[in-house]
Amino acid sequence: MSSETRIVGARVVPHPGAVLEASEMAFSPSSGLISYLGRVRGPAGAGDVDARGRIVAPGLVNAHTHAAMTLLRGHSDDVPLMDWLGAIRAFELRMTYDDIRAGLALAMCEMIRSGTIGFVDMHLWDAALLADVCGAGMRVCAAPAVFGYHPVAYPMARQETGAEVLAGTPELAAEFAGEPLVRVGYGPHAPYSCGPELIGDVARRAAKNGLGVHIHLSETRAEVDESLARHGVSPIALAGRLGLLTVRTHVAHAVHCQPGDAALLASAGITVSHNPISNLKLGAGVAPVADYRAAGVALGLGTDSVASNNTADLFEEIKIGTLLQRGVRHDPGVQSGADALAMATSGGAAALGEGLSGRLAIGEPADLIVLDTRGPAATPLIDPRSFLAFAATGADVTDVFIAGRRVLADRRLTTLDEPAIRADVAERVLRIRAELAP
Amino acid sequence: MSSETRIVGARVVPHPGAVLEASEMAFSPSSGLISYLGRVRGPAGAGDVDARGRIVAPGLVNAHTHAAMTLLRGHSDDVPLMDWLGAIRAFELRMTYDDIRAGLALAMCEMIRSGTIGFVDMHLWDAALLADVCGAGMRVCAAPAVFGYHPVAYPMARQETGAEVLAGTPELAAEFAGEPLVRVGYGPHAPYSCGPELIGDVARRAAKNGLGVHIHLSETRAEVDESLARHGVSPIALAGRLGLLTVRTHVAHAVHCQPGDAALLASAGITVSHNPISNLKLGAGVAPVADYRAAGVALGLGTDSVASNNTADLFEEIKIGTLLQRGVRHDPGVQSGADALAMATSGGAAALGEGLSGRLAIGEPADLIVLDTRGPAATPLIDPRSFLAFAATGADVTDVFIAGRRVLADRRLTTLDEPAIRADVAERVLRIRAELAP
Repeated sequence: MSSETRIVGARVVPHPGAVLEASEMAFSPSSGLISYLGRVRGPAGAGDVDARGRIVAPGLVNAHTHAAMTLLRGHSDDVPLMDWLGAIRAFELRMTYDDIRAGLALAMCEMIRSGTIGFVDMHLWDAALLADVCGAGMRVCAAPAVFGYHPVAYPMARQETGAEVLAGTPELAAEFAGEPLVRVGYGPHAPYSCGPELIGDVARRAAKNGLGVHIHLSETRAEVDESLARHGVSPIALAGRLGLLTVRTHVAHAVHCQPGDAALLASAGITVSHNPISNLKLGAGVAPVADYRAAGVALGLGTDSVASNNTADLFEEIKIGTLLQRGVRHDPGVQSGADALAMATSGGAAALGEGLSGRLAIGEPADLIVLDTRGPAATPLIDPRSFLAFAATGADVTDVFIAGRRVLADRRLTTLDEPAIRADVAERVLRIRAELAP
Repeated sequence: MSSETRIVGARVVPHPGAVLEASEMAFSPSSGLISYLGRVRGPAGAGDVDARGRIVAPGLVNAHTHAAMTLLRGHSDDVPLMDWLGAIRAFELRMTYDDIRAGLALAMCEMIRSGTIGFVDMHLWDAALLADVCGAGMRVCAAPAVFGYHPVAYPMARQETGAEVLAGTPELAAEFAGEPLVRVGYGPHAPYSCGPELIGDVARRAAKNGLGVHIHLSETRAEVDESLARHGVSPIALAGRLGLLTVRTHVAHAVHCQPGDAALLASAGITVSHNPISNLKLGAGVAPVADYRAAGVALGLGTDSVASNNTADLFEEIKIGTLLQRGVRHDPGVQSGADALAMATSGGAAALGEGLSGRLAIGEPADLIVLDTRGPAATPLIDPRSFLAFAATGADVTDVFIAGRRVLADRRLTTLDEPAIRADVAERVLRIRAELAP
C-alpha cells in the first residue's frame, strides 16, 4: 500500500457514461497504472490526496495545437485573416530556437494548469524539445512541420529544409521509441502549402516507417474551393488519393466538408481534431461535427495555437464547441455535454496514439485531473458531468496526474518553474516586438 | 487623503480606447466617485490596494439575466428546447419565495467573483429582494416579470396576478427612488407570452410613470414567424406599433432580425442585450450583432440565466460573442475585442440606467475590477485589452469595487456569506428535485 498513491473521497467520472459517488482510486507511481477504483478503503494518508467534495475525471487531451506559439498570444488579434497571417509569419521569422523552447515551456504550464495531460502538436520538434516534454511529464504526439521541400517556417530557429525534416522524423521517432509518453509522426502542414508530390511522399514514408501523420485539411472555404478547382476533389479526398488515408493520419480542422468527405474519414478510421474557437477567431466557420458523429468519424478537441484562441483551456472548447453545434443547427439536442467530454478524453487519446484510453479503470494509465467544487458555479452540483461540460474552467483544476506522476499539486506545478518561464517569455516577446518595430 | 481608497500601480484600461501604464486611481468610499486617476503618487498604504502588475478595468454589467434561477444550473442540459422549457417550468413551479431569495444570493456571489458590478434582471422582485441586492452592494435594474394578466410564473412563491405586478411596479420604484444603485422597470416577458393588449398597457404605464421596460424580443425563428403570421410584423416592429419603442425599453436577444428592425431599434435609442451563449445553448442562433453595430444600435452583453448558460461569467460572453460573429460571418474583422469590452461596460451601463458610464474617469463612479496577471494565459501581456477580451476569465478577478465599496477583496466576498449561501442552495435544490421525482 505504501507504494501507492490514493485519491480519496472524490466523485469520480471514469468516463462520460458513469459517475461514482465518494470513491477511492489508487495507482502505483512506478507502473503509472490504476490499481484500484471503488469504495473508500480508509482516510487519506501522507502523499495521498484527500479529494472529498472534489471531482476526479480523465485528463484532457489537446488534439491539435502548436504549443510553442504561446509567444504570439495577443499578437494581432483584431485584423483580417491575410493581415493576421502576415503578422504571425513576420513574428515567427524572428523566433530563435530558444524562443521556441521557452514558448513550449509556457504552453505546458498553461496546459497542465487547465487539466490537459497530452497534446498533438505540429511545429519545430527535435530531441531537446521532446526531452523538455518528458521533463514536464506530459504526453505528446509531435509532428515536425514541413511546408514543402524548401526550408521550414522557422529559419531563425533552424536552417533545415523540408526534405531534411522528413528524413529526420523517423530518426527522432526511433530515438524516443523507449519513452512511453512520446510519439513522433510526420507533420506535412497542408496540401496547399506542401503540394501533392510531397503529400504522396509522406504517405509512402509513413507506411514504410510505421509512423502516423498530422495534417491540416479543409480549414477554410477558400482552401476547399482552390482544391476543387486545381485537383477536382476536396482536400480530404485529395489526401485519400495521395495515400494519406491508408496510414494512421490525424486531421486538424475539417471545417468545410464536401459530400463524401465524412464517409471517407470514417471508413478510413481517421481521427479529426475539431478546433471550434480557432475556427471562429480566424473566420473559418463551424465544422459539421454532428454530421461527422453521425457518420462515425473519430473526433477530438483542440485549442489550436494561442495565436488563434488566445488560451489553451480545453474546458472552453468543450463548452463552446457543444453550444456552437446547437446554435448553428438550431437544435439543442444535436450534441450533449457528454459527447464533448468524450471528444476531449477518449477522442483525444485516440489521436495521441496507443497507450491511453481516456477512461479511468483498473489497469488503465493514471492520467487524471482533480477539480475544486467550492466556486459558486459548482452549486448546485447535481451531475458532475454537467459541471465538467458547461461550468468548469481550467482554473478549477487543483491536481493533475499523468501516468501516475503528480505534475500539478494543489495548483502548484511540480515539474516546471512557472515564474521563471513567464519572465523569460515576456522578455523574449519584448525583444521580438522591438525587432519588428519599424 | 485618509478618507480615500487608492489602487496603486496597476495598468488601467479606463475604457476600451486607452491603456494607462502603472497608474494610481483614488476614490472616496463616501461619495463613491473617482477623485484621482494619474501617475502613482506614492506607495499603497493600509486600506489601499497594491495593484502593481495587475490590471484595473471598468466593472462589467450583465445586461440580461434572471439571477434567482441559479438553482436550475445543470437542470436538463441536454434536451430539445420544448422538453427543456417543460423541465424548467416544472422546477420553477416548486420554487418558494425563500428559494428565489437563496438563488439570487448565489447569483450575486458568482457575478461579483467574476467581475460583474450590476445586472438587468427580469424575475420576481420585491422590496426584500431589492434590499438583498443593496446589502450585497450591487447595481440592479429589476423588472418584475409578468406573463399576461393571469398569475405570474412563480405561484409557489407569490400568488400575484400580472395585473397586480404591473400595479405594484411603480410603487416598488418609488420605494427605492433614494437608492442610487437600484432601478425598477416593467418586465413584460414577451409579446407572445403577454399578448399585444398587455404590451400596449405597459407602454402607456411606462410613459405615464417615467419607468423603463425590459422585454424579450425575437429570440427564436419560431417566435418571429408566429408574429409575422399573426400580426403581419416582426416582434420588434410589433413592439413599436404598441408604443414600446417610445419609452425607455431594453430588449433581450433580438436574434432573428427582419428588414427594418435594426433601423427601428437604432432610431428609437433602444438598448439591446446580446446573449450569445444562451442563444447557442437553446438553439436560438446567432444575433446579427455586426448589422446592429453598423445601424447604430446600443448593445450590451448578457449571460441570461445559468439554466441556459451554465455560468454567469461575462468574460465568456466577451470572448465567445466576439469570435462567434467572426466565425459565422467568415470575417475576423467584423468585431474586435474592444467592441466587446465596450458592450460589457459602457453598453451595459446604458442598459442599467442613469448614473454609470462604464468608463473610469475623475468624477465617474468607482465601479471597477482588479485582475491578477500571474496566470500563464496572461503571458505575454502586450496589451491588457487583448487579455481582457480573449484570455481572462472571472477567476482572474481579485477585487471588485462598486460605487467605491469593496465587495470583493483579494478574492474574498465582503458582503455575502458564500459558504452558507452555497450550502443553503444545494439543500434547496435537493428538496425540489425530490419533490419532482416521480
